[in-house]
Amino acid sequence: MADTVDFNSDMGESFGPWKMGDDAALLEIVTSANIACGFHAGDPDVMATTMRNAMANNVGIGAHPGFADLQDFGRRRMTLPKERLENLVRYQLGAAIGMAKGLGCKIRHFKLHGAMSNMSAEDGDMARTLYEAALSVDPDIIIMVQATTAQQQVVIDLGCAWAGEIFADRAYNDNGTLVDRSQPGAVIHDAELAGQRILEMVQESAIITVSGKRIPAPIDTICLHGDTAEAVAIAASVKQTLLSGGVELAQFQGRR
Amino acid sequence: MADTVDFNSDMGESFGPWKMGDDAALLEIVTSANIACGFHAGDPDVMATTMRNAMANNVGIGAHPGFADLQDFGRRRMTLPKERLENLVRYQLGAAIGMAKGLGCKIRHFKLHGAMSNMSAEDGDMARTLYEAALSVDPDIIIMVQATTAQQQVVIDLGCAWAGEIFADRAYNDNGTLVDRSQPGAVIHDAELAGQRILEMVQESAIITVSGKRIPAPIDTICLHGDTAEAVAIAASVKQTLLSGGVELAQFQGRR
Amino acid sequence: MADTVDFNSDMGESFGPWKMGDDAALLEIVTSANIACGFHAGDPDVMATTMRNAMANNVGIGAHPGFADLQDFGRRRMTLPKERLENLVRYQLGAAIGMAKGLGCKIRHFKLHGAMSNMSAEDGDMARTLYEAALSVDPDIIIMVQATTAQQQVVIDLGCAWAGEIFADRAYNDNGTLVDRSQPGAVIHDAELAGQRILEMVQESAIITVSGKRIPAPIDTICLHGDTAEAVAIAASVKQTLLSGGVELAQFQGRR
Amino acid sequence: MADTVDFNSDMGESFGPWKMGDDAALLEIVTSANIACGFHAGDPDVMATTMRNAMANNVGIGAHPGFADLQDFGRRRMTLPKERLENLVRYQLGAAIGMAKGLGCKIRHFKLHGAMSNMSAEDGDMARTLYEAALSVDPDIIIMVQATTAQQQVVIDLGCAWAGEIFADRAYNDNGTLVDRSQPGAVIHDAELAGQRILEMVQESAIITVSGKRIPAPIDTICLHGDTAEAVAIAASVKQTLLSGGVELAQFQGRR
Repeated sequence: MADTVDFNSDMGESFGPWKMGDDAALLEIVTSANIACGFHAGDPDVMATTMRNAMANNVGIGAHPGFADLQDFGRRRMTLPKERLENLVRYQLGAAIGMAKGLGCKIRHFKLHGAMSNMSAEDGDMARTLYEAALSVDPDIIIMVQATTAQQQVVIDLGCAWAGEIFADRAYNDNGTLVDRSQPGAVIHDAELAGQRILEMVQESAIITVSGKRIPAPIDTICLHGDTAEAVAIAASVKQTLLSGGVELAQFQGRR
Repeated sequence: MADTVDFNSDMGESFGPWKMGDDAALLEIVTSANIACGFHAGDPDVMATTMRNAMANNVGIGAHPGFADLQDFGRRRMTLPKERLENLVRYQLGAAIGMAKGLGCKIRHFKLHGAMSNMSAEDGDMARTLYEAALSVDPDIIIMVQATTAQQQVVIDLGCAWAGEIFADRAYNDNGTLVDRSQPGAVIHDAELAGQRILEMVQESAIITVSGKRIPAPIDTICLHGDTAEAVAIAASVKQTLLSGGVELAQFQGRR
Repeated sequence: MADTVDFNSDMGESFGPWKMGDDAALLEIVTSANIACGFHAGDPDVMATTMRNAMANNVGIGAHPGFADLQDFGRRRMTLPKERLENLVRYQLGAAIGMAKGLGCKIRHFKLHGAMSNMSAEDGDMARTLYEAALSVDPDIIIMVQATTAQQQVVIDLGCAWAGEIFADRAYNDNGTLVDRSQPGAVIHDAELAGQRILEMVQESAIITVSGKRIPAPIDTICLHGDTAEAVAIAASVKQTLLSGGVELAQFQGRR
Repeated sequence: MADTVDFNSDMGESFGPWKMGDDAALLEIVTSANIACGFHAGDPDVMATTMRNAMANNVGIGAHPGFADLQDFGRRRMTLPKERLENLVRYQLGAAIGMAKGLGCKIRHFKLHGAMSNMSAEDGDMARTLYEAALSVDPDIIIMVQATTAQQQVVIDLGCAWAGEIFADRAYNDNGTLVDRSQPGAVIHDAELAGQRILEMVQESAIITVSGKRIPAPIDTICLHGDTAEAVAIAASVKQTLLSGGVELAQFQGRR
């Protein structure tokens, strides 16, 4: 059983005068922050502020690129040719690295957002294109993957540093995919339930599905979405339950 | 007198389905390309294509950031606080570096675009903010400055690598500033005249003003705007006249 | 003394997935809603939702256009030629009218937003350009002006229907302009104070300045900004105080 | 056989500093202009200029809305809920009507652009949603439909004014759909061929497919895409061939 696990959240999702999420509160709990890069959310000013706050809280900083789609927050699926996918990743990851370098911090991990992530969790070729593009910009970056999906197989094949992720607030089907948001119980709103469930998964190194099935999984980090009303409460509960169960929160180191 | 001089042009100014400039023709003539970074022009796909073409022509690649202003092409003056100026530069330069690294080339120089350049040519504090932001992302980058302006004094003070630039197609006032575009003769459309005039300036290491006055200037590179109808004709004429006068075109090395 | 006064608030300022303001709560209090038109805030979906909710609350609907500037929420001053100002107004007002017609409601008033309003409150020529553009789209629209400013003189000269507006949460200088937001006391955060002050102004038909000076003013409507933390509390206090003082809230009819 | 037929082209597809198409040349040939509304192309300034030029050439003016997608020019398919489709149409059509009214002209027809058109040519429910939204803004507007597609059935069912359209530069399959652009011969680049082919179709009131099959069709207007290199040459050839064959060009009146 793992002694430590990482706790990550999407952040920096405000845009110009519009605020989203309580980043300040979450930064006191999580160990890794996935920062939007300006295409589906965020802008240069929001990125800088979020990186500064993450640094101040000793939280690991990651680039979190998505499709160019403010209206639908990067959640609309888009089929793009290989080269355009590469360009989207290189541009956004480069921008994040430039911001971080200028501020005196470092982009240590890379996580895909929204539809770009969900499509590549199903499609290994797409995942490979996107991850190779990221590694072409920084070969040492740690790639965060949805555990047990096509993403995971790709990083194993690539031989790069990676971390496996499960979701604190989403139910899983027996085949390891997420229960569709349109189904009852797909999203877990009960903070206590979420904490207990995550502790079990970490202790068993397995995804526990809605039917109770165990799917062995490399659990390096737990994702909490920051844009829900219960985000901070669930984060606090997950952290407390893990600590009570003897699991410390600490940044992942990346496995190969 | 200089044996060589660099010849630069703004490029990669297309956007999505809209084309601007004849980059392919200019890349066969110039030695340095200033590539838009997506805020006033360009997008990730245009950037990648332009970088690939510049590489194929052995043309030096530079980042050319501007204000976030597609409608006015970065030519609208905006007064922004220091931190927002820094964020604009770091984001765009980082994006350009990420794109270049992924494509196997290098961003070797940095040049401000439009109103961001003209404001900082008058305002040393603003120039310093923008250039320090660029150097915080890449301390070795060569900064291209409008020769004899506040920009030049700032790079001397900073002690960084830089190159002095004059314009092939713009008339100069006696104080070294550009004749306002609203005045007759401000923009030079005659290719032969432009070539002869530039050769004289390079031979004398001086800006020659509308009254014939000489202002000593470090002339490392000559700028040709790529978005005018005469751009390619003027570029060819300038190159031919310089060669006839014994001046070779070659990438600047950066002075300190 | 007036028996009734209108109470207006800027609304529909959310954008895509980002929320701003508590429109639902304000719509239960105000009598007129100024709805953003997609250039500085809002989008077609936000506009439709806001119009539907305004209709359901019998609140008068107005178009609230601004400069094309999401990052700075239309608060950045831009100097544009006359024709571009006209185009900005006609496009946004037309869009609002189209949305309203499709939903079965009507745009009855027109109010400028942010920098577009503040610049034209100082510059009668600009106000005239913008208002004539609005009237060219709908000659019967009621134009809401900042009382006693250049805007007011223009609508009187134009002979169109208009309504004079004062601000519930901003202090006034002795010359009738607003105290700059950088000064202490410029923005009134105390709900009770705001209510009492507005009742006095309505009873005296005058703006009361920071020094206590009275500037006679046509007060047809009171503006409350919806994007502050205290917005709903101040709105409720202003309404209650006015009612206690014998002033009913009702939509303005437009004066000429 | 028809004595007259309308000739339409998409226009106003420039954006900010970027030019697209030779609108000035086409406006001397066509009888109807479909003007982009700022979501996939165009902006308020481009719209105003295009409308003024269309008026000066006595060309009928139509609104040409598309998906909000500058990068892919409205050609990316997007599945949106009914209400969002309605909002897209009402906003863009309203904006066009506002611009036209301010300039002293009239929007007389409505034509969908790109993916929004192609999806609704296949999907009658989507066509009905979009057309009802347009009619809710202006019940008298003439709706231009791709002849023989689901769009045509919808306008017949709605009982509104409409005009049937065929394409001057695209080959047709035997089922009446367009040959996919990826197939050889899908786009006709030969001006003479295009002219002869269109004359035959108009004379026979039928679409002539690649196999020579005739599909009876109401041909009220012929579409020429303005963004190809051959656009002006094909337009001139089509016009000349029609005139030689005794068919005059004139604005459609709308059938029911």
